[in-house]
Amino acid sequence: MGEELTVNADEAWLARKPLPQALVDAYYPRMNPIVVAGESERMTVAKQELQDGLNRLLGRSVAVETSLSHIGGLWVGTLAHLKDESWARGLSQEQVSDLESRGQEAYAIWQVESQAVRVLAIVGGSDRGVLYGVFGLLRQLASGDDLDAIGGVEAPTNAMRMIDHWDNVDGSVERGYAGRSLFFRDGQVLSSSPRLQGYARLLASVGLNAIAINNVNVHREESYLVTERYLTDVARVASMFRGYGIRLFLSVNFAAPMELDGLKTADPLDPEVIAWWQKTTDIIYRYIPDFGGFVVKADSEFRPGPFTYGRDHADGANLLARALFPHGGIVVWRCFVYDCQTDWRDRELDRARAAYDHFVPLDGRFDSGVVLQIKNGPMDFQVREPVSPLLGAMPRTAQMLELQITQEYTGQQRDLCYLVPQWKEVLEFDTYAKGPGSSIAQVASGRLFDQGRSGIAGVANAGNDYYWTGHPLAQANWYGFGRLAWDPSLTSERITREWIRQTLSDDETVVSTISRILLDSWKIYEDYTAPLGVGWMVNPGHHYGPNVDGYEYSKWGTYHFADHLGIGVDRTQGTGTGYVTQYREPHRSRYQDLTTCPDDVLLFFHHVPYQHRLHSGTTVIQHIYDRHFAGVKEVRDLEARWRRIAPALPKEFAETVAERFRWQLKNAEEWRDVVNTYFYRKSGIADDKGRFIVP
Amino acid sequence: MGEELTVNADEAWLARKPLPQALVDAYYPRMNPIVVAGESERMTVAKQELQDGLNRLLGRSVAVETSLSHIGGLWVGTLAHLKDESWARGLSQEQVSDLESRGQEAYAIWQVESQAVRVLAIVGGSDRGVLYGVFGLLRQLASGDDLDAIGGVEAPTNAMRMIDHWDNVDGSVERGYAGRSLFFRDGQVLSSSPRLQGYARLLASVGLNAIAINNVNVHREESYLVTERYLTDVARVASMFRGYGIRLFLSVNFAAPMELDGLKTADPLDPEVIAWWQKTTDIIYRYIPDFGGFVVKADSEFRPGPFTYGRDHADGANLLARALFPHGGIVVWRCFVYDCQTDWRDRELDRARAAYDHFVPLDGRFDSGVVLQIKNGPMDFQVREPVSPLLGAMPRTAQMLELQITQEYTGQQRDLCYLVPQWKEVLEFDTYAKGPGSSIAQVASGRLFDQGRSGIAGVANAGNDYYWTGHPLAQANWYGFGRLAWDPSLTSERITREWIRQTLSDDETVVSTISRILLDSWKIYEDYTAPLGVGWMVNPGHHYGPNVDGYEYSKWGTYHFADHLGIGVDRTQGTGTGYVTQYREPHRSRYQDLTTCPDDVLLFFHHVPYQHRLHSGTTVIQHIYDRHFAGVKEVRDLEARWRRIAPALPKEFAETVAERFRWQLKNAEEWRDVVNTYFYRKSGIADDKGRFIVP
Repeated sequence: MGEELTVNADEAWLARKPLPQALVDAYYPRMNPIVVAGESERMTVAKQELQDGLNRLLGRSVAVETSLSHIGGLWVGTLAHLKDESWARGLSQEQVSDLESRGQEAYAIWQVESQAVRVLAIVGGSDRGVLYGVFGLLRQLASGDDLDAIGGVEAPTNAMRMIDHWDNVDGSVERGYAGRSLFFRDGQVLSSSPRLQGYARLLASVGLNAIAINNVNVHREESYLVTERYLTDVARVASMFRGYGIRLFLSVNFAAPMELDGLKTADPLDPEVIAWWQKTTDIIYRYIPDFGGFVVKADSEFRPGPFTYGRDHADGANLLARALFPHGGIVVWRCFVYDCQTDWRDRELDRARAAYDHFVPLDGRFDSGVVLQIKNGPMDFQVREPVSPLLGAMPRTAQMLELQITQEYTGQQRDLCYLVPQWKEVLEFDTYAKGPGSSIAQVASGRLFDQGRSGIAGVANAGNDYYWTGHPLAQANWYGFGRLAWDPSLTSERITREWIRQTLSDDETVVSTISRILLDSWKIYEDYTAPLGVGWMVNPGHHYGPNVDGYEYSKWGTYHFADHLGIGVDRTQGTGTGYVTQYREPHRSRYQDLTTCPDDVLLFFHHVPYQHRLHSGTTVIQHIYDRHFAGVKEVRDLEARWRRIAPALPKEFAETVAERFRWQLKNAEEWRDVVNTYFYRKSGIADDKGRFIVP
Repeated sequence: MGEELTVNADEAWLARKPLPQALVDAYYPRMNPIVVAGESERMTVAKQELQDGLNRLLGRSVAVETSLSHIGGLWVGTLAHLKDESWARGLSQEQVSDLESRGQEAYAIWQVESQAVRVLAIVGGSDRGVLYGVFGLLRQLASGDDLDAIGGVEAPTNAMRMIDHWDNVDGSVERGYAGRSLFFRDGQVLSSSPRLQGYARLLASVGLNAIAINNVNVHREESYLVTERYLTDVARVASMFRGYGIRLFLSVNFAAPMELDGLKTADPLDPEVIAWWQKTTDIIYRYIPDFGGFVVKADSEFRPGPFTYGRDHADGANLLARALFPHGGIVVWRCFVYDCQTDWRDRELDRARAAYDHFVPLDGRFDSGVVLQIKNGPMDFQVREPVSPLLGAMPRTAQMLELQITQEYTGQQRDLCYLVPQWKEVLEFDTYAKGPGSSIAQVASGRLFDQGRSGIAGVANAGNDYYWTGHPLAQANWYGFGRLAWDPSLTSERITREWIRQTLSDDETVVSTISRILLDSWKIYEDYTAPLGVGWMVNPGHHYGPNVDGYEYSKWGTYHFADHLGIGVDRTQGTGTGYVTQYREPHRSRYQDLTTCPDDVLLFFHHVPYQHRLHSGTTVIQHIYDRHFAGVKEVRDLEARWRRIAPALPKEFAETVAERFRWQLKNAEEWRDVVNTYFYRKSGIADDKGRFIVP
């Protein structure tokens, strides 16, 4: 049975399988004809998407007309065109002003009945809103929502909904697990690649509106992307993305004035440097009038930055912001700043403190054209970390949340690790920055401190792989990231179902099985990897597979301090590094106190004996054994669950996923055995259930 | 003072600084004129070396004449020319037949006085012997030996004195720490490089007579070295080396018939495969009439081999030997064969057993054109291993000892580790293969079992680095290797002094200081790295720097099994892997028994508690702490000793070495702290001297 099914890998969740016949019969009259008011590049895209999408969902052709039929149809246009429509008199003034107030990216889906005419309308705050409305309606239909229940105004919670590529011009992708770059090959920009257009379409369909196309680690050749060596081609890419409502950003090298033009300094206060960036920016905007701006990793992991000149991050960021701002661009300045030359011998140093310590004192010093991009945790995208205390700690500075869609530390798209539940936890975390209710979602959206340019950025997980993302199910992370960036209040369950129904099947058993597989996977990955929030324990460099001491004696500031008696990093006030004081109450006290610190981050905050009893009732050492034995079983169970529904899925897709589960099982077994043996050898404490641990 | 001194880096130990004036006055009459009898390429080389060498040692020109002067001079020629010389009647028949019996590579230095004529003669068994005689005389003079004491017959102990390069045609060198390849650059053979000729000269000066120019891991492009794509250039290199008495070998890819010519198999018993190798060999000998043969790494570390076809190593080696033998070539077949996909969970597997288990059953099955090349230890060139039990265990098979001059696991020519003392220990180890007195030197020379084609091979440590070897003092390893290959009975002290005096200085303080620095360095390196023979504990992949668990949970079969109670690998009979049974008595019992097992290999053979008391009187854990604290101090002391003599040395040379000592100190400190902390955290046992260990 599965053999006859196929999957449209190129279009991913936009594959648009036909709806059941009963729905087609009911919906067709209401969506035929389509009338699209107004013209623009984006309106053309919207029209095409709508027509193709409906044709495929309904299994028959809808007509595109210049006016509605006598019984109505589907009207698409912006607020500006609405006033010419007689049926629009059926809308209340309240409805219209509501949409007007929500901005250019907002849209409404309205169902208007006046006399015998029944109009389904997609109305955008601008053509961008229209595009989102078209994708929104199609998504809801494909997700199985009832048309009668669809309606109302939708607007993005976050102004910035950004995807960051770590791609290099030779076509390699740093931390990429999905083939080669979509943007570059062998030093060339793939400016007319159909795959790239397909990518823009997928991004727009979930509402993403900004993209940085090159690696934040800007190497020699990539430094030239801001120059005329590349700008003609980059502009072509920007133009294609523009049609999908997406602005293009470039990552830049802070030392570019020196490296590209031989200036003697890159000092942000030096007049020649200031002039260099102004000139460079002027040229970029000649090629790309709506250029988004720069993404910058400075003074971090060997990247150059303002520190070299005795300047600080505000000086550095403002330099670039002032060059960009007159053109309407901004600087996304990353806060992933720490000393990566730490001496592991010094147990008082704490990398977790670094971002907060560096940036909080600068609050108020950043120009309004600067947005700080802050990773969700204080370390680096581990399977479990507490939320970064920097988020919400700078009321006078725009902050963006940075998530990692690409699974650097979470299985590299060989292992399944669906991150939407993790991101939800982050977004719902209450910082108490302005009292209770100051969630990360509120911080990121800019609403908490009235910062308009805020939002969410994610490091891309897509490449030129057949399924875009290596592991076919890793597509759901990308999809889910986009959906959460648009609306952080969406539930994991809702997002998950949407993705499955659009991509794979509307069979309820399939949908619920894959939903559970996805929703369980983060916890499972956590079970068989580093325990209780301590993180790391991976092989250095590539970061796949277990290596308990892999980063223990290194310069990277990532330690667990396991000895024969216990494990964990004391980050409390008093005996530890004092990192807990970066949180507001009640978190500070909750993390500080061993009796209230949550189990899942216990070892991030405390060094405890192996016999320490968790809130769960078990000891730390027994927890390690239990979770690692369980993790392997759970992966085996994922595999079994997948096997059961595989016949109802496209064969190739099902087999690709099955193969990944086999790899994952091997990886989980390796983690289980290495971690269990490591702690058994070190502690001498046997598993109280007598299971086999390699001695 | 040091600033005026210079070093002739290109010529290394052949730099030939002038002798003291008193010696010059005494020697000059006895070496002037030179008469060289007979003509050949090698005689031309010998004449040139002698003339240049004497001119530089004596600081004045010696004349080259066709006959001796009335008072004599220095006569050079082969035995064949000796009979025409009237002065030669002063030699006894016994002297002459002694030289005759020692073979073509032998030489004599004779001092003959008859009437008023005083002749110093270098007489070779062939022109090769003459060349060695010339280098020998010059070496002895440059080393400060008294001319009156020089004399007698010298012949190499080993027929094969080989140097193996792990060079790739792109110019990279596997495990190379001295720049790029001397033989290849960007896919080209450097067949007319003056540097390469200088290299041949240095090899010949210490008596090496065989060279394999490419990596035993034969990659795609290197597989073509045996074809006409490369043979014109390779033949040019072979021809240049021929002038220095050195035969050229190539490493080959066992799967070459398939990879180069699309054969369906590489099965050694397949007629097409047999024909392919014959044809390939015929072509090689058309280009290189004295081609040495092939070096082969098969069925090891992912290299193809006979196992694929259900054949064994004898089948594989004989295939190639039969193709080569008619032309006078041989196969050097490496015994570095083991399963590099071991499951670390299975503590009964033992990589140390592999070579013996694979090869001993094949004794008697190898053609006489096969020589097995066996690493000195059962693992892989660690700073301390027991001697390989395979050496001497195959009476009917020619065996060559393989040493590693390049310092893969011994500091990578950043850290000083002079290996001649280690090699001496290996050579003097008594295998008891034919009762007491069956040393490794006896095995390698082929004398123990009357195997003529035996000898010693060393993996090269030279590249296109300014000093040839990265660390300038690492030259001494290369020099010492050649000298030991010629005569394993030479003492470390003798070799060390020779190298220093020729290369750097005849100042006695300098010579004795550098001698001690070199001779102490192996032990010091051992002190601060993996303890008591257990090996490894290095960073995987590149193998530099400490990583105690770096290979502990890997597939490579290289474990230490440290837990909270103890450490070591039980390789005894009964409770362990039984590896000890591969040794003859008394070693078997000596290693088996904890009370007789030598401290320095204790953890190679036994798993013991940290509190186990060594013969030295200290416990294992305290030994680890003591040696690691001592190791750092010793490196600091090396640095101080070097600083004291530096003013008497060429400045640049002294500073290059001083810089390496600074690196070594950092490395030693890192080793000390990582190893001490690792064992302190694991055992919970404090240093009994209360020194600081990172908790």
